[in-house]
Amino acid sequence: MQRVMNFNPGPAALPRVVLERAHAEWFDFAGTGMSVLENSHRTKPYEAMQDDAAARIAALYNLPSSHTVLFLQGGASMFFAMVPFNAMGGGKRARHVVTGTWGEKAAKEAKTVAKLLGEPDPIVHSTKRSEGWAFASVPAAGTIEASAEDAYVHVTTNETVDGVQYASERGAALPAVKAPLIADMSSDFVSRPLDLGKFACVYAGAQKNAGPSGVTIVVVDKAWAEACRKDIPVIFQFRTAIENRSLYNTPPTLGVYLVREVARWIQESGGLPAMEAMAERKALALYGAIAESRGFYMCPVDEPSRSRMNVVFRLPTPELETAFVKAAESEGMLGLKGHRVVGGIRASIYNAVEEAWVSALVDFMGRFRAQHGH
Amino acid sequence: MQRVMNFNPGPAALPRVVLERAHAEWFDFAGTGMSVLENSHRTKPYEAMQDDAAARIAALYNLPSSHTVLFLQGGASMFFAMVPFNAMGGGKRARHVVTGTWGEKAAKEAKTVAKLLGEPDPIVHSTKRSEGWAFASVPAAGTIEASAEDAYVHVTTNETVDGVQYASERGAALPAVKAPLIADMSSDFVSRPLDLGKFACVYAGAQKNAGPSGVTIVVVDKAWAEACRKDIPVIFQFRTAIENRSLYNTPPTLGVYLVREVARWIQESGGLPAMEAMAERKALALYGAIAESRGFYMCPVDEPSRSRMNVVFRLPTPELETAFVKAAESEGMLGLKGHRVVGGIRASIYNAVEEAWVSALVDFMGRFRAQHGH
Repeated sequence: MQRVMNFNPGPAALPRVVLERAHAEWFDFAGTGMSVLENSHRTKPYEAMQDDAAARIAALYNLPSSHTVLFLQGGASMFFAMVPFNAMGGGKRARHVVTGTWGEKAAKEAKTVAKLLGEPDPIVHSTKRSEGWAFASVPAAGTIEASAEDAYVHVTTNETVDGVQYASERGAALPAVKAPLIADMSSDFVSRPLDLGKFACVYAGAQKNAGPSGVTIVVVDKAWAEACRKDIPVIFQFRTAIENRSLYNTPPTLGVYLVREVARWIQESGGLPAMEAMAERKALALYGAIAESRGFYMCPVDEPSRSRMNVVFRLPTPELETAFVKAAESEGMLGLKGHRVVGGIRASIYNAVEEAWVSALVDFMGRFRAQHGH
Repeated sequence: MQRVMNFNPGPAALPRVVLERAHAEWFDFAGTGMSVLENSHRTKPYEAMQDDAAARIAALYNLPSSHTVLFLQGGASMFFAMVPFNAMGGGKRARHVVTGTWGEKAAKEAKTVAKLLGEPDPIVHSTKRSEGWAFASVPAAGTIEASAEDAYVHVTTNETVDGVQYASERGAALPAVKAPLIADMSSDFVSRPLDLGKFACVYAGAQKNAGPSGVTIVVVDKAWAEACRKDIPVIFQFRTAIENRSLYNTPPTLGVYLVREVARWIQESGGLPAMEAMAERKALALYGAIAESRGFYMCPVDEPSRSRMNVVFRLPTPELETAFVKAAESEGMLGLKGHRVVGGIRASIYNAVEEAWVSALVDFMGRFRAQHGH
């Protein structure tokens, strides 16, 4: 069967071998005589699998023993509320660094939670511009100052809608702060090596690089979680999930299983350095095609902050953008329409997006440009 | 392949035809050339499927147009907190009717939320006993009085751990109250016809009768949801999910797909009346085997409140219970150990548990009893 070339922003392409393995043991998981879907989460085969999933993610990041990996539900949008519920308190001020659409939503939920808890309104550091492409960069290094007296500093490591990413190797470094650092890492989790030990908490909807929708991976500093507030619902508290090894309530069992298989595939493909190298090759090919188009394709994001996960670009007119998406679809390239809020084109090139698909897209971009007189 | 006989309390057995259909279109969902897992939730094929899933559940219940069906995340445990966050306010008092382990947890989270919101402590009506099996009945009809001045009345229609269910046909009726009625229906959703139009809100983790874990089905009165509080995080508000047709954030796409397939299977099997009739036959067979054992098997639940979903019983000693579970496993009957909090034996007999499996269990119960001298 011909696979389509899937550039969806998430849910997104999964590695073929992961789909094949799940298909092969669909009716009989780990010799249990039933589907992984039908196993209780209170059985040894399920628990062993889930522990293995967590261990593989910890191994990918060489995670220090101070931290642990959790499998929860609700997506990043739920953790926009969960994080401040856990981490606000004692009159300390939270800081939200906003570099895109998702970070903006996180900051808004944090304000609501602060009001409910009677805590101070969070400080928002936003790179939003009043005209043109709203978010085009991360803050310059050294501009976010936060002390140990702040509740936390929240960042979004990659902005899926806006195509903005923190990339220290290109000078777009994460803020160096003394306050607990918290990151929504939904769209670049397991895409590159990173010292997660320096974060108090990282959360990521799995449906970009790490698995299907419906499972949220949380990497958390256990001591930090233990110090969080206790007057909130038990289900909200990170410590509940830690104490119960993500089994306080029923986890999304098939989702965890698929995350395990994706983690296995990453390990067998060379780990996070290999994922990063592949992402770099794919991104360079696309940004290269944009650069050599002499303005026909235009990336609105400042160069150091350009995402290696979501490559956004504009064409001279919205009509041409619509034609571009339609013509690409006719060649089997799907999911290229930009987010409805910002428009334009977006090629999401997560781990499982094959390099051959990106080559096909680069080739198509050249032909489409030539057809339109550039 | 020989299927095991799966009596797990949830995640639980799924209908064979549902597993087969998902397997058959695993690599190519609805002609998209990709797995359902790989489709963006912002595409027509996905949205059409999700709308169809909601429509099938509404059709099963003959749901009035005042209500809508939502697909959310977090399981019942998350809604123990979400419900009071939405529904408390204006100094009105909430009432929690507690008939088992899950209802107790719901009441505890509601107390925490009331404190956070500065609302009055909820009133708890509990049937808990100080000795023996803690929960053995639902409240007698007419004993729960609630007026339109109360914030809401919360019930758990079936208690999975304790084997206690509201069953109006046996005299264990749901409270007739003037306040908004809210139900955790996790373990008997889509197991029998019921007028959901009389509930303000029903929520159910799908992993019992309706699908896999990781998707929570919510049926809600739209006008009630619109009147709920607005000073809570956007992601908590039922109105957000209603306005966005469960697509405010990324839904658990594969879970919704499987719920749709289970709903289709129920429709093709005769709808909820057929599910109820089958549940009744399976339950009668097991309760009959208990009754005729002359005390070897003992069901601790009062007869009118005995669950048609989770049949709990004790043996003369804990050692015999352990031997029972082990011997049943050797015959391919899995998941019969009672919940760790209450002990004993529990046979969960949800929709997809085949009648032949229950017959095999009844036969086994007779032989096990004979072997042990009764």
